[in-house]
Amino acid sequence: MSAFELDARLRNDTHRVGELALCSVLLMDDARFPWLILVPRIAGMRELLDLDDASRTDLYAEIDRVSRAIRELYTPDKQNIAALGNVVEQLHVHVIARYRSDAAWPRPVWGHGDRIAYAEPAAIERLIALRTSLGIGAS
Amino acid sequence: MSAFELDARLRNDTHRVGELALCSVLLMDDARFPWLILVPRIAGMRELLDLDDASRTDLYAEIDRVSRAIRELYTPDKQNIAALGNVVEQLHVHVIARYRSDAAWPRPVWGHGDRIAYAEPAAIERLIALRTSLGIGAS
Repeated sequence: MSAFELDARLRNDTHRVGELALCSVLLMDDARFPWLILVPRIAGMRELLDLDDASRTDLYAEIDRVSRAIRELYTPDKQNIAALGNVVEQLHVHVIARYRSDAAWPRPVWGHGDRIAYAEPAAIERLIALRTSLGIGAS
Repeated sequence: MSAFELDARLRNDTHRVGELALCSVLLMDDARFPWLILVPRIAGMRELLDLDDASRTDLYAEIDRVSRAIRELYTPDKQNIAALGNVVEQLHVHVIARYRSDAAWPRPVWGHGDRIAYAEPAAIERLIALRTSLGIGAS
């Protein structure tokens, strides 16, 4: 069994928030949307059903936890939660804060225009707030 | 507390597969994609976090169950599972079989072109197969 390694595209397009028990938590480097991605650190996973029952239960709990953090920090009009994986095959789950005023509303965010990277101070500020809310260190 | 009533747009755009313990299972009336929608029969829900813990656990179990049925019946290249709700506010979860050859691949299905309704025999055939696989009656 090969060791888990984060998909290169996920790594390149995100900032690392930190580690929960099962998942790495990533912040999509797109200042248009507060957009987190959970990636279970188990090699070879593509579908939710690829996880064993215990890990899938853990993933659902971590989705809930990230979703609560997003609700508290960003008070979105709507959360979008999705496991798609048509482009990046490695299993990952999007948890996104959406607003009626955002760039893509009411359409989904995927493939909508071009990503706008965070200015560095804004990214750092957001990462600190997320780590505090999730109770995780940068490690 | 008001009684649960299925959102009118969900009702109009789908065929009814049947009822699981928590959710109504709907087949999107779009022959381009094998596309199911789960709707928890609890009034006033918009977000996954609106559900109490027990109901959210039940929803996750029913997502897994529908996802297994879709895998067995349609052997998709990828499943897309998502709770969006930017257009229809009533809490609902999409479980969609995707293929590298399908009309929208690799983009998400939402907002992609126009829905193509099933011919009636194809819809009935699909509903029967889904009910058998899920072990639920039309009721």
